[in-house]
Amino acid sequence: MKNTNIVCTNCRKTYPVERVYPRCDSCAEPLEVERVSAGKITDGNILHQTILERYADFFPFSEGEGTISLKEGFTPLIESTKLASELGIKSLHFKNESQNPTWSFKDRGTVSGVNHALSLGYERIGTVSSGNMAVSVAAYGARAKLKTFIFVSANIPPEKLDPIAIYDPLLIRVDGDYGDLYFQSLAIGKDCGIYFINSDVPFRVEGSKTIAFEICEAMNFEPPDFVIVPTSSGGNLRGIIKGFEEFLDCGLIKKVPRFVCAQATGCSPIYEASLKDKEKVSRFQNPDTIAHAIENPFPPSGNEVLRKIRENGGIFTAVTDDEILQAQKRLAEEGVFAQPAGAVPLAALTKLREDTTIDEKSAVVCIVTGSGLKYTAAFAKHDLKTAECRIEDLADFVSRRL
Amino acid sequence: MKNTNIVCTNCRKTYPVERVYPRCDSCAEPLEVERVSAGKITDGNILHQTILERYADFFPFSEGEGTISLKEGFTPLIESTKLASELGIKSLHFKNESQNPTWSFKDRGTVSGVNHALSLGYERIGTVSSGNMAVSVAAYGARAKLKTFIFVSANIPPEKLDPIAIYDPLLIRVDGDYGDLYFQSLAIGKDCGIYFINSDVPFRVEGSKTIAFEICEAMNFEPPDFVIVPTSSGGNLRGIIKGFEEFLDCGLIKKVPRFVCAQATGCSPIYEASLKDKEKVSRFQNPDTIAHAIENPFPPSGNEVLRKIRENGGIFTAVTDDEILQAQKRLAEEGVFAQPAGAVPLAALTKLREDTTIDEKSAVVCIVTGSGLKYTAAFAKHDLKTAECRIEDLADFVSRRL
Repeated sequence: MKNTNIVCTNCRKTYPVERVYPRCDSCAEPLEVERVSAGKITDGNILHQTILERYADFFPFSEGEGTISLKEGFTPLIESTKLASELGIKSLHFKNESQNPTWSFKDRGTVSGVNHALSLGYERIGTVSSGNMAVSVAAYGARAKLKTFIFVSANIPPEKLDPIAIYDPLLIRVDGDYGDLYFQSLAIGKDCGIYFINSDVPFRVEGSKTIAFEICEAMNFEPPDFVIVPTSSGGNLRGIIKGFEEFLDCGLIKKVPRFVCAQATGCSPIYEASLKDKEKVSRFQNPDTIAHAIENPFPPSGNEVLRKIRENGGIFTAVTDDEILQAQKRLAEEGVFAQPAGAVPLAALTKLREDTTIDEKSAVVCIVTGSGLKYTAAFAKHDLKTAECRIEDLADFVSRRL
Repeated sequence: MKNTNIVCTNCRKTYPVERVYPRCDSCAEPLEVERVSAGKITDGNILHQTILERYADFFPFSEGEGTISLKEGFTPLIESTKLASELGIKSLHFKNESQNPTWSFKDRGTVSGVNHALSLGYERIGTVSSGNMAVSVAAYGARAKLKTFIFVSANIPPEKLDPIAIYDPLLIRVDGDYGDLYFQSLAIGKDCGIYFINSDVPFRVEGSKTIAFEICEAMNFEPPDFVIVPTSSGGNLRGIIKGFEEFLDCGLIKKVPRFVCAQATGCSPIYEASLKDKEKVSRFQNPDTIAHAIENPFPPSGNEVLRKIRENGGIFTAVTDDEILQAQKRLAEEGVFAQPAGAVPLAALTKLREDTTIDEKSAVVCIVTGSGLKYTAAFAKHDLKTAECRIEDLADFVSRRL
């Protein structure tokens, strides 16, 4: 590893880069890798690079480290002039994270975390998740030939279990409080030499920086006015903000966008804390939203997200399941089929345009976090149209619908 | 459009590039765009290019055409040293087509076909498919704001219908013989001004060339000894072969690989014809395989595939559902979760190593055509392992499994 530190996001206490435990010993707030203030993009065609190679200056891996990859990242930034026009803004782009190796943004953080684990000599990794992150860690654990422990809750439905199990991790359905499981995993990881790449470990957050880097490159280093991020644990949003800030500090861009922390009203602990001007997030009671991928009732990076968004002059918002479903359909009609959580930014933008929080001069980027194929139960919530016809009537049927 | 022709693959009769009807008027065999024998790769970083831009010399689009895109292609080529060693070959790579905008290779042919339709002034497109191709055409039709007709059979299950319907095409369940539907669509297309981008229209085949181009680039213009392609209609295999041949003719590579036409034994009309030394493919009776994406009983490009593979000194083979499922699991354990059809090449390679048809000095590329999330019914065919544990016993449980 390069000579750098891990730093507390809150009290700035420092730890060595070999630190795995993701919370501060003093204030229990999340840690992060020390910010990079001098760096550049590695020359070369992304055809022959991984994200860890192209952005090597922004990761603490030394020569010969960071080599495990499934060729994650370098996802498309898709412009929609039609939606920009309908919403009355200057421009609108979708960062389509569904084109990753396990079809969500999680692969960026996982590749960073797995390579950290390998650099430190770990032979075992793990995670606590029943969604995108579990699938991603199982896939990279398989790729790296590491023993991989995935803790899920006992009542997980088969449609979520199977896409994890196919990669053959040690998949354990745990009967007990799911909230406790996160803390249990940290204790077990320490005792058993398992690196738990959970939602906001510093190296997972580092991986999310590459979303910001790629947006800057695709937009010729003129970042948008707003970046809207579906927010659950807060790790992805933290990484994206950190990425823009590092590019600013390195002189690669001239401004940092304003960020929108977008939650589902059915599970919006960070938004609720912002409404009440609180400094700390409280556990959200009885979470219930179709956007399961962001249904974390007590986000471990919640307080840090509150701090960062306030410092940034950003926006907190939340959208209903109906608004999410409408956005999912509208986005599909642009050719991008997102899981419900991935449609949350478009729903949020629609709302923030209606109340004019985002003005008509704005260039906006929405982070589409994962594929619509990840959560097929959402189909039943749409009024999907099909027609029926006998083959002998088909020509006539079609000619009446031209 | 550039000044080029459409040519019959069999009798070489030529047609103008504006030709949409995909069969020869004389011999009824499939047509193709005239081969490119002088061209180079467009300079630039793929970060800022589409496949149609990077390989513009190899497509008949003129300046200002070919602009519709969802940023398809540029998919990873993933090496597996472990499987290469287990199978006893020099090297093994997987071209992971599941990282396309609709998570299959079909997007390459669709983007080419849609842009041809737009160049010719069409306002309506369509396809006959109930799988990957239907999803892809629906997505690109939405993206291009074209009226999009998708014909599926009346008994299509909801799990296949919904991922098409979400893009909001005119989706018609047709009661009648599905084989007839292909020919019906061509007649209706002619009468109603609908460009049917079916499985082997010349411009869809053109799109598949880019798989070959990207393999050449990723392997530094030293192509592998074998490329193994799951084969249904034959259009994708034709395109991949054509891509390598064009790069050879343009002096970009020094040899063309040998190709393996890999089918499922439950639907192997091309393989059966090859066994009987026939020149024409016959309709396969009672097709039944878990690899639904390649379950075409009467492949429209079957005869051309027979011709091309024989000319190339290639291999015809077929693998059972059990072999496909084993390959699917083995591939997932490398971190790549493919739909059953996408695991057919690894199953074929395993078989061709057992009977030594492919020797130990071989470098092999397998085309992984689509995502495992496309066909979740396959999960039930695997013996997927999970453990159960109470949270209070978890530390002990894990410590006994290190």
